[in-house]
Amino acid sequence: MNTNATTGVDGTSFLTACLTDKEVEQAGEAMHDLLCRLFPICRSISGPGVRETLKQIAGVVPLAITELPTGTPVFDWTIPREWSIDEAYIEHENGTRYVDFQENNLHVVSYSKPVDQWMALDELMPRLHSLPNHPDWIPYRTTYYKEDWGFCVSEQVKRRLPAGRYHVVIRSRLYDGSLTIGEHLHAGQTDDEVLVFSHTCHPSLANDNLSGVVVAAWLAAFLVGRVTRYSYRFVFAPATIGSIAWLSQHEDRLHKIRHGLVLAMLGDDGPLRYQRTCGGNAIIDRAAAAVLRHYPSSEMLAFAPWGFDERQFNSVGFRLPVGRLTRALSGHYPQEHTSADAPTAVLPSALGEAWRACLRIFEVVELDRRFDNLAPKGEPQLGRRGLYRQTGGHYDGVPERTLALLWLLNQCDGSKTLLDVAEHALLDFQLVAHCARELEQAGLLTPAA
Amino acid sequence: MNTNATTGVDGTSFLTACLTDKEVEQAGEAMHDLLCRLFPICRSISGPGVRETLKQIAGVVPLAITELPTGTPVFDWTIPREWSIDEAYIEHENGTRYVDFQENNLHVVSYSKPVDQWMALDELMPRLHSLPNHPDWIPYRTTYYKEDWGFCVSEQVKRRLPAGRYHVVIRSRLYDGSLTIGEHLHAGQTDDEVLVFSHTCHPSLANDNLSGVVVAAWLAAFLVGRVTRYSYRFVFAPATIGSIAWLSQHEDRLHKIRHGLVLAMLGDDGPLRYQRTCGGNAIIDRAAAAVLRHYPSSEMLAFAPWGFDERQFNSVGFRLPVGRLTRALSGHYPQEHTSADAPTAVLPSALGEAWRACLRIFEVVELDRRFDNLAPKGEPQLGRRGLYRQTGGHYDGVPERTLALLWLLNQCDGSKTLLDVAEHALLDFQLVAHCARELEQAGLLTPAA
Amino acid sequence: MNTNATTGVDGTSFLTACLTDKEVEQAGEAMHDLLCRLFPICRSISGPGVRETLKQIAGVVPLAITELPTGTPVFDWTIPREWSIDEAYIEHENGTRYVDFQENNLHVVSYSKPVDQWMALDELMPRLHSLPNHPDWIPYRTTYYKEDWGFCVSEQVKRRLPAGRYHVVIRSRLYDGSLTIGEHLHAGQTDDEVLVFSHTCHPSLANDNLSGVVVAAWLAAFLVGRVTRYSYRFVFAPATIGSIAWLSQHEDRLHKIRHGLVLAMLGDDGPLRYQRTCGGNAIIDRAAAAVLRHYPSSEMLAFAPWGFDERQFNSVGFRLPVGRLTRALSGHYPQEHTSADAPTAVLPSALGEAWRACLRIFEVVELDRRFDNLAPKGEPQLGRRGLYRQTGGHYDGVPERTLALLWLLNQCDGSKTLLDVAEHALLDFQLVAHCARELEQAGLLTPAA
Repeated sequence: MNTNATTGVDGTSFLTACLTDKEVEQAGEAMHDLLCRLFPICRSISGPGVRETLKQIAGVVPLAITELPTGTPVFDWTIPREWSIDEAYIEHENGTRYVDFQENNLHVVSYSKPVDQWMALDELMPRLHSLPNHPDWIPYRTTYYKEDWGFCVSEQVKRRLPAGRYHVVIRSRLYDGSLTIGEHLHAGQTDDEVLVFSHTCHPSLANDNLSGVVVAAWLAAFLVGRVTRYSYRFVFAPATIGSIAWLSQHEDRLHKIRHGLVLAMLGDDGPLRYQRTCGGNAIIDRAAAAVLRHYPSSEMLAFAPWGFDERQFNSVGFRLPVGRLTRALSGHYPQEHTSADAPTAVLPSALGEAWRACLRIFEVVELDRRFDNLAPKGEPQLGRRGLYRQTGGHYDGVPERTLALLWLLNQCDGSKTLLDVAEHALLDFQLVAHCARELEQAGLLTPAA
Repeated sequence: MNTNATTGVDGTSFLTACLTDKEVEQAGEAMHDLLCRLFPICRSISGPGVRETLKQIAGVVPLAITELPTGTPVFDWTIPREWSIDEAYIEHENGTRYVDFQENNLHVVSYSKPVDQWMALDELMPRLHSLPNHPDWIPYRTTYYKEDWGFCVSEQVKRRLPAGRYHVVIRSRLYDGSLTIGEHLHAGQTDDEVLVFSHTCHPSLANDNLSGVVVAAWLAAFLVGRVTRYSYRFVFAPATIGSIAWLSQHEDRLHKIRHGLVLAMLGDDGPLRYQRTCGGNAIIDRAAAAVLRHYPSSEMLAFAPWGFDERQFNSVGFRLPVGRLTRALSGHYPQEHTSADAPTAVLPSALGEAWRACLRIFEVVELDRRFDNLAPKGEPQLGRRGLYRQTGGHYDGVPERTLALLWLLNQCDGSKTLLDVAEHALLDFQLVAHCARELEQAGLLTPAA
Repeated sequence: MNTNATTGVDGTSFLTACLTDKEVEQAGEAMHDLLCRLFPICRSISGPGVRETLKQIAGVVPLAITELPTGTPVFDWTIPREWSIDEAYIEHENGTRYVDFQENNLHVVSYSKPVDQWMALDELMPRLHSLPNHPDWIPYRTTYYKEDWGFCVSEQVKRRLPAGRYHVVIRSRLYDGSLTIGEHLHAGQTDDEVLVFSHTCHPSLANDNLSGVVVAAWLAAFLVGRVTRYSYRFVFAPATIGSIAWLSQHEDRLHKIRHGLVLAMLGDDGPLRYQRTCGGNAIIDRAAAAVLRHYPSSEMLAFAPWGFDERQFNSVGFRLPVGRLTRALSGHYPQEHTSADAPTAVLPSALGEAWRACLRIFEVVELDRRFDNLAPKGEPQLGRRGLYRQTGGHYDGVPERTLALLWLLNQCDGSKTLLDVAEHALLDFQLVAHCARELEQAGLLTPAA
């Protein structure tokens, strides 16, 4: 199909057909640059690392920052103390520093309490997390809700620690502070919202989830200055406690959220995967399906109540139609939550394609609506409107565009949306939307009341 | 199954079980004879050819003729001027007549305006339609709604036209006249109608659609004098504008139409195919499925909004449950809309079988109804009514007739029709209908209120 | 899963997890012993053989006996005369007794009227039923509702009967008496009932249906003294006329029956098979599916209106959700209704497994209920309740128990039952029930109002 349309049915103006491959490639490179800058920051579910991350995102799109004080009840949870860390190391009595937080912020179990003590190797060992199957990778571990401490080290380092006594130091602080959430709102023609959520709590891990964070930022940036039907709300917050906290602060306007996407792990070399909402067939699910069918090897997955923050939005008390776009599947991506999840393993092209796929999903959601056929009795005379060839009798097949026009006329009874028509007729959504616009311009279709 | 029943549940009398293969064969031959007589007539969407065709059909069953004047608005359309043609040819300056309408009425693009002029070969060429892939076939083309003219010729003839000047003559007329529709009504016990539509506008083309026309005529003839529950309305009219015009004239009583069939392309050697109504599971669809399962290679097709006049009946404004019985699929029948669609390619046996299949479909529709079980509490004692063998204990399988009796008793709760039972139990509809009659006669079933 | 739970959600106490394989094996042996004792008794749809059978079952669990007098109308049927038989034989004039009821009670067609006459071989032959394909088996035949008589003999015996005259004697009686039904009620916490039906009318046939009878008796025995939510009603009655008669006597309280099972042919070496109720997806059907998935080669079958007494319970007038648990399929078990259906062909282990499968089905039905999530907004903090590991970051897969907890929290909105959750999440029902109890104990789930 060749559609050069650049405006939506009602004058909106962000059809992705105008995006060139070159622009997508450039966006991918730019997202990867930001990802590399964000990578070294030591994030956790609270603390200065999250604030610094949001500050850098605010260089791409304006962000409103919310600070939720320690102790604030958020549904079944309570905002924990804030955590910050200055240094941490394990030093042998001979002066050799075997593990140093300065080298990699994964080395300290996140939310470790302060430690400064001498201990023997056999006392130290139970405090060391490693991955025997990946001897040169450092794992990522957390202890948010249980006061504890520990180090994460590669199996190689762990094995070659000599006997003797060690000076074990974690100069961290746990103190009454706040949990930080960043938010960007793109105001559309209506108050109905599309929610885009990405979690910001992981330290030096690239695909999980700086990839989601930078794609979200670039989506927000793309929308700036564009006319859309929906408002788009981008939320950058820690996983689990962050989305729960955000929900607790906005209960009175959650009903505005009509569609939502959680973005996570979008930078690896796997195919695009979309996990459906709990209901399984929300408009956002169908929009994602209409888009992903054009991506080789892409997959539509059933909802499951684990994974990322979509499970909070889809919980019994909210049932918000929020799906998740992702590439690697949790549990099938060995690098996940290890030092191997580094910027070098994130492809700029993967970020670019994920970004374009999101825009295409938004586009479907923007264009999808119900139409009434204004000439419902029999077929209208398409020929005199230039929508059908004038010489009859050919039987060399019906052009796809003609099929789309005829299916729209046959199906648009005021109850069917464009997605309904495209799904029923097994036609491409963009083609159907394009033809709906042609029929609307010809006075044969009109948006249903 | 051997059912010698010859009357319906309520005394109707056209069960097809009484039709012998010989009678079907004879009907096929007779239909083919009429088809051969109708073939040479130059039909179009209006004009004397249509009238002559209807006159000959009226030799089989009485027809009421409606003439809709040029200019009459019919929904989004307007009845066009009438077209007639006396002669047309292309003659070289050397006196050789290369193309002559008298030889084949496909030679002139239907609705061509009058022409009488001399032109060079290179001027003439763009006016000549041919089929490079089938060099000895003449295509069929029309220009109903755009004032224009042209000739259709075989590729062979086109290629051997010598240089020079040609006298190009079309002695046609476009004038205020009328569009002609023929109609036959078989009155049944109720006003509820079965509509049978076949298009009459194609000139010398045999399968498309003289095959449909003659089968429709023979169906009407078969019903004469027979008692039926439904009334049957047979409409013979041009494609598209004809069905639209007919609908526009009968809007006030379209609600009487409970089931409908469009008949087209029934004479080729392909299997029987039925295209479902827009809803996809109307009674007529299910009746066709119950019948076609007995025809090897037959197919049930989903509705699609192109094809023949069923798309007018199924349009948003009407949604009449009208399916289509056909053999060759449009787009997969090379002869379609060419001179190769000749009577010699139409098989009398194909016409006969299509005719019998239609009668079987009518029969299902006639017999299908809801029943109440009059002994609903547990199984009634079939043995003392002669419906079950009296010596018990056999386990050499349950006879199919017994299964049908038990399924009817189990399912007939006043909400299920015989089609429901047959489909649910995977049983032949005729067997189920036969057993329903036995149970009715035994006082165990009664038509539901 | 290792669940050592021994009480139901509300304190009921018969979870089958506490049943050891040894206990099941012992139960199988004990059932087979009873089956062997019951085998020689000459049962029919009425008469002393049925009474003797019920008397022996009453040695396992107390039975209430109902006698329905001859002539009592039961829906479309009437209780027939009672039948008893003392002796029967066919003796050649030379004094040789070729057929003797004392040797096998299948020899006489059940309900044969008395006979005492001399007849020639060719007169006798039409009275002899045999199985040419199984020359050494005696068939089983009945003539309950047509006054008649006959003998069943092996094909071998039939063929070697010498010419000559025979003394044919059947010392039977048909007299006003009654039809006998036995019943055992296990009272639960509610009046809602689970019905268990097995037919008691077959004479010396082991799998059909002494196997069903002994399993039913052992189920009843198991429940004695146990607290259950449902009441369990065990009915032992003749096939067809017995279930119809029972239904006719209890119409006013049939609405108490929430689930039901017909037990038949459970002792052969075939896999367990469950025939669904007429509706096809009743709770009992889903409970059976949840249990049978753990049995290799087991099958779930669609309802069909023949087979055993389930068809009476599922008839239009009742539509009680009664399924059937069975092994061999009627019509596919050559021994059915022949002398080859002997105790030696019934496996104690098959009886034991069928018994345990029934208990597991009961257990699902007992435990299945709707729950409300008491912390529905987002995920509750499982970690602080000991339901989730406290150190985060692991990605070595989610434990099945965690999945079950999360699915329950996600799905329990007051409308979903545990079966709903297990089916939706493709999880084992027992695991889901176990986790529901954990969540209930943690104050996160509560039975829905």
